[in-house]
Amino acid sequence: MSKLPIIIDCDPGQDDALMLFLALNAPELDVRGVVACGGNVPLARTELNCRILVEMAGRTDVPVFAGCEGPMVEPLFTAEYVHGETGIDGIDFFEPTIEKQAQHGVDFIIETLRAAEDNEITLVPTGPLTNIAMALVKAPDIAAKIKQIVLMGGASFEGGNVTPSAEFNIYVDPHAADVVMRCGRPIVMFGLDVTHQVMTDDKVVADMRALDNRVAHASAGMLEFFGQYDAAKYSADGGPLHDPCTIAWLLEPEIFELKACHVAIETRSELTRGHTAVDFWGVTGNTPNAMWAYKADRTRFFALLTERLAQY
Amino acid sequence: MSKLPIIIDCDPGQDDALMLFLALNAPELDVRGVVACGGNVPLARTELNCRILVEMAGRTDVPVFAGCEGPMVEPLFTAEYVHGETGIDGIDFFEPTIEKQAQHGVDFIIETLRAAEDNEITLVPTGPLTNIAMALVKAPDIAAKIKQIVLMGGASFEGGNVTPSAEFNIYVDPHAADVVMRCGRPIVMFGLDVTHQVMTDDKVVADMRALDNRVAHASAGMLEFFGQYDAAKYSADGGPLHDPCTIAWLLEPEIFELKACHVAIETRSELTRGHTAVDFWGVTGNTPNAMWAYKADRTRFFALLTERLAQY
Amino acid sequence: MSKLPIIIDCDPGQDDALMLFLALNAPELDVRGVVACGGNVPLARTELNCRILVEMAGRTDVPVFAGCEGPMVEPLFTAEYVHGETGIDGIDFFEPTIEKQAQHGVDFIIETLRAAEDNEITLVPTGPLTNIAMALVKAPDIAAKIKQIVLMGGASFEGGNVTPSAEFNIYVDPHAADVVMRCGRPIVMFGLDVTHQVMTDDKVVADMRALDNRVAHASAGMLEFFGQYDAAKYSADGGPLHDPCTIAWLLEPEIFELKACHVAIETRSELTRGHTAVDFWGVTGNTPNAMWAYKADRTRFFALLTERLAQY
Amino acid sequence: MSKLPIIIDCDPGQDDALMLFLALNAPELDVRGVVACGGNVPLARTELNCRILVEMAGRTDVPVFAGCEGPMVEPLFTAEYVHGETGIDGIDFFEPTIEKQAQHGVDFIIETLRAAEDNEITLVPTGPLTNIAMALVKAPDIAAKIKQIVLMGGASFEGGNVTPSAEFNIYVDPHAADVVMRCGRPIVMFGLDVTHQVMTDDKVVADMRALDNRVAHASAGMLEFFGQYDAAKYSADGGPLHDPCTIAWLLEPEIFELKACHVAIETRSELTRGHTAVDFWGVTGNTPNAMWAYKADRTRFFALLTERLAQY
Ligand SMILES: [Ca+2]
Ligand SMILES: [Ca+2]
Ligand SMILES: [Ca+2]
Ligand SMILES: [Ca+2]
Repeated sequence: MSKLPIIIDCDPGQDDALMLFLALNAPELDVRGVVACGGNVPLARTELNCRILVEMAGRTDVPVFAGCEGPMVEPLFTAEYVHGETGIDGIDFFEPTIEKQAQHGVDFIIETLRAAEDNEITLVPTGPLTNIAMALVKAPDIAAKIKQIVLMGGASFEGGNVTPSAEFNIYVDPHAADVVMRCGRPIVMFGLDVTHQVMTDDKVVADMRALDNRVAHASAGMLEFFGQYDAAKYSADGGPLHDPCTIAWLLEPEIFELKACHVAIETRSELTRGHTAVDFWGVTGNTPNAMWAYKADRTRFFALLTERLAQY
Repeated sequence: MSKLPIIIDCDPGQDDALMLFLALNAPELDVRGVVACGGNVPLARTELNCRILVEMAGRTDVPVFAGCEGPMVEPLFTAEYVHGETGIDGIDFFEPTIEKQAQHGVDFIIETLRAAEDNEITLVPTGPLTNIAMALVKAPDIAAKIKQIVLMGGASFEGGNVTPSAEFNIYVDPHAADVVMRCGRPIVMFGLDVTHQVMTDDKVVADMRALDNRVAHASAGMLEFFGQYDAAKYSADGGPLHDPCTIAWLLEPEIFELKACHVAIETRSELTRGHTAVDFWGVTGNTPNAMWAYKADRTRFFALLTERLAQY
Repeated sequence: MSKLPIIIDCDPGQDDALMLFLALNAPELDVRGVVACGGNVPLARTELNCRILVEMAGRTDVPVFAGCEGPMVEPLFTAEYVHGETGIDGIDFFEPTIEKQAQHGVDFIIETLRAAEDNEITLVPTGPLTNIAMALVKAPDIAAKIKQIVLMGGASFEGGNVTPSAEFNIYVDPHAADVVMRCGRPIVMFGLDVTHQVMTDDKVVADMRALDNRVAHASAGMLEFFGQYDAAKYSADGGPLHDPCTIAWLLEPEIFELKACHVAIETRSELTRGHTAVDFWGVTGNTPNAMWAYKADRTRFFALLTERLAQY
Repeated sequence: MSKLPIIIDCDPGQDDALMLFLALNAPELDVRGVVACGGNVPLARTELNCRILVEMAGRTDVPVFAGCEGPMVEPLFTAEYVHGETGIDGIDFFEPTIEKQAQHGVDFIIETLRAAEDNEITLVPTGPLTNIAMALVKAPDIAAKIKQIVLMGGASFEGGNVTPSAEFNIYVDPHAADVVMRCGRPIVMFGLDVTHQVMTDDKVVADMRALDNRVAHASAGMLEFFGQYDAAKYSADGGPLHDPCTIAWLLEPEIFELKACHVAIETRSELTRGHTAVDFWGVTGNTPNAMWAYKADRTRFFALLTERLAQY
C-alpha cells in the first residue's frame, strides 16, 4: 500500500505536538515536511518546537520549515495563557540537532505541490491558515495538486474558545481561513464541536505515562500542563485534543462522523471575527465546501492515540 | 399576592400564540396590554392574530396595539415558510370583535411605563425587538421603570435558525436588539439553546387535543402545523416551543437553568447579522448584561403548559 | 401665492440659529413647527435654544417640540468643541417665555404629516436625522405626505469634518440617515461640498452687526464665536454656514447648482461611519435618490441672508 | 551622484506605461527590476506589457518579474473598461525578446531588499499593493531595508473613481493597502487628488507625437486611447496621468505639494471598500503615516514628461 503524502503546517502547541507524534510514526503516512507558523506562540518558538518534536519522534529525516511570522492582515494574537510561554510546556526541553531549512515554509509548500501530480498532496494545517493561504495567493496554480485540506479550526455548536463566537485558529487569521475555504479543493474540518468530545482526563494521561518510551512520557507531561486551562474553564478533568483529530481521521476515519456543509468565515466584524458560519442544517442554499466533523468516538480516539504512542 | 404587571410584545406565530394562552389565564400575571410587531408575518396580520388569540382566551379586557411595521434599519424579513401565510396556520379563524387600540404600540409601552413605579413593569417580547427599542430611543426615561425584559431571542450553542449564525427575532432587527441589550436593565433571554430542549411531539399534541376546551384545541391545531417545518429540518417529531419559555419562566422559574453572561449583538456584518455573542465561559471580561437560559426541564415545561391550557 | 408648509428639525448650533432666523421671517414659508434633536449639544439644550431663537425672531406662535435625545443605535456624540457649551455661544441668553410643547417631536411630525395632503409638507432637518427616521419607522404611511426633505448633511469632495470621511450630522446617526435616504421621497442635500463655499468672513459679520435689530446682532455674535473653530482648522477667515443653505435654497434656488445622484450611507464600518457615498459621476448604476448641491453663489447667498436679517 | 535604487511594481495600464518610460531613461534612478501584478488587466497581460515596455525603452537589462495574479483576499477586479483589453491599447504591439524571470516577483522584492542596506531601496508601486504586502507578510524583516514607498493610490477630496468612495488600486486589494500603510516605513502617496490635476489634453498628446522617437509615439498613441474614458466621464479633454506622478516626484519633487497625514484603509465595508481615510485636517489625533500629495504643477509636470520622452 502506498503511503499518503502529507504536509503538516502547525504551531505547537501541546495538541499540535500530539498530532505530530501521531503522524510521525504512522506507517500510513508520508510526511513530506513540517511547516511552522506563528500562532499559539510566536514563530521563532513554534519552529523550534517543531524541530524538538520531530527529533524526539526520531524522524530527523523530516525537514522542518519556518513559515510566516504572523497573519495576512491582522496583527498576531498568541495564546501563552493556554499553552505556557514555550507553547509546549510540560516537555523536557533540549536543543535539537536538526536545523531549520533555509527555504521559507510557504515556498516549500508551493514547490512540493508543483512537483506533485494533480490531486496528490494532503495538507494538514493545525494552526492559523496563514501559510496555506499565502501559498495559494502567491501560486494559485498549486490548488489542483491538493488532494484535500484536513484542518483543525472553527466551531459551530461550540461557539468559540478565544471569543464567544470564534475558535483560535480561525480567529487569528480570518482572512487566510477565508482564502482557504474558497480555494475549491476538498476540505475536512475538525472544529471545537468534535474536539470538545475528545477531552483528556487523568486516566488518559496515566495510560500514556505507563507506556515505556520517551515520546509517550513527553505526551503525558504536556497533556498534564495543557489540561489545566480547559479543566479550569469548563470545570472538566482535562482539555480537548484539538489537533490530533486531523491525523486520527486520516488513520481511522470511522472514529468521526462528518456532514457536507457550507462554511463561511467572518472577516468584516470585530465582534465576530473568525466566526465559522457552518450551514449544518442547509438553510443558506450554498453548495457545501467542507466536510464538517460533528461527532467523535472518544474511546476509539484515545485507543488509537495510546496504541500509536506505544509504538515509539 | 400581587400580580406581576407585564406588557407582551409579539408577532404571532404559533409559538407566540401558545405564549399568549399561557399568559392570559395565569393568575400570577397582570397583562396590561399586548403589542404586535412585524416579524413572522407582516404587522397587519400579527395584530389581527393578537386580537383573535386574546379573544379566544376570553380576555377581551386586554387591549391590543399595533406597533411598528418593520425593523429600525433593515427591511422586514418574514417567515411564512415556517408559520404559514397567516402566521398561525392550524387555527380556526374568526373575525374578532375586539378592536385594535388607536394608540401606537410604542406609545402604549411608553405611557404604561411612565405611569408606573421604578422597577415595576416586566416586558415580554417574543418577536423582533423593534417596539421595545423604539420606545427606549423615543423616551429613554422609561428605562428605570422596567423591572426586567424577559425575551425570546438569540442562540449560542444552537448557532441559529434563520441563518447558521443567528436566530430569527434578533436577525430581523439586530439594531433593536443591540439597543435593548445595552439598555442597562435586567434581561432574561430564552434563545434556541433552551427552546430546542422543549420540542413538541405527537404525545404533547395529543394531550392538548384531549383537553376539552377551544383554546387547547386551537393550540393542538397550531402545533401540528408548526411542528412540520422543524420536524422536517431536524428529522424530529415536532418543533421547538420558543416563545412560551418566557411566560413559563415567570410562572415556574425552576424549569430553567440560567447563567449571567454578557451578550453582544452583531449589527455590522451581513454574514453574521443578528448573531448573539454569548460569553458563556466568561472569556471577554465584559460584565454580564443578561441571564442566559441554557437548560430546560422538558417534562415540567409541558406539564405546566398542559395544566394551564386545561384551565381554559 | 400660498406659503410652503415646512417642519424644521434642528440642533442649534449657531448655523441652525441662522437657518431659523432665515426661515422664521420668510413670507414664502409656513413654519408649522420646530423640532429639536440631540446633536451639536444635548437635547435639553437644543430644545431650549430653539425656544430662545423662535422667541427672539418674534414668532412665539410657532410651536417648539423636543424630539429624541440621541441616535437610533449609536450613543450620542456632541460637538461642544465647535459650538461652545451652549451650542449657540455668542448670543445674549434669556429665559424664553414660550414653553416646550408636551407632544414628542416625532409625534408632531407624524401628526402633521398625517393631517396633510399627499406630497404637501417639506421637512427641513439640519441636525442628525433621528427624528425624521424615527417618524418613518413608527409610521411609514407618512412618507407619501412628504413633498421633499431638504437637509444639511454629508460630504463628497470635502470628505468630512468630524472624521476624515464623514460629516457631523450623518456621522452622529448614520442609521437614521440610511433610513431617510431610502424613504423613496425627493431629497435635496446640502453637504460640506457646498457649505464650505459659503464661509463667513469679517465683512459678513460686520454687515450683520451694522443692521439695526436684535436678531442681526445676535447673528453677528454667534458667527463671531462659530467662525473661530473653522478659521483655526482651515486657516480661513470664518466658518461655513452649513444649515442656512437649506432655507436659502427654498427661498432662492438659483443660488445653488445641484445634480441628481445616488447617495448611500455607511453604517457598517467604524472607520468610515456616516460616510456619504455620493455617486457624482454615475459609476454605480444606482438610480439617484437625491439632488446633491455642489455649487453655491456665495455673494448671492450672503446678500439674501443680510437682506432677510435686515427685515427683522 | 549615486543613483536611487528602486523597484517598480505595476499593472500596465497606459499610465503605468508612461511611468515606466519616465523611470527607465532617468539618469537619477537605478531600476533594479520591474514586477507585474494583476490589476488593470490580468497578470499574464500586465507581465507581458512590462516586457514590451521595458524593451521598447531599450532597457533589456532590467529584469521583469511576474508577481501575484490577484489580491490577498478579494477576487481580482480588472478595468478593461478604462484601459482596453490589453491594458495598453493604443500601442503597436510586438513580441518582446526579453523573457519573464523565473523568480516570483514577491521573492525578487524580498531578495533585493535583504541584500540591501537598511533604508536603501525605494519601492514604487503603481498598481494594487498585493506584491508589496505579500512580501511584507512573508518576510517582515525586509521592512527595515525600505527607504520609502512611493505609490499611486487612494483619494481624498476626489472621492474615488471605481466607486464613489475608492480609487482603483486601493479598491482592488484593500487588505494589501492596509498592510502597507501600517508597515512603519515612509510612504509617499499620489492619489486622485493630485493625479486629477495632471490631465492630458490634445496639446500634450500632440507635443509627444511631435517628438521623433518610438517611445514618445507609443506614449501619444496610448494617451489618445486612455484619455477617452475620463474625457467622456468628466467631460474633459483627456485623462489623468496617475502613475507617472510617482516617478515625477522622485525626479522633480518641487512639482508637488505634500502634507503629512494619517491614512487608514477601509477593509470591512463593501460600500466603502478601499476608501482611504486621509486625515488631511488632523482631526483624528493619529500620527501621520504618509506624505499625501495634494497639489501638482501641471505645466512643470508635462514639461518634465515631454523633456524626458524627448531623450529616448
Ligand atoms: Ca495548533
Ligand atoms: Ca415570536
Ligand atoms: Ca445643525
Ligand atoms: Ca497602475
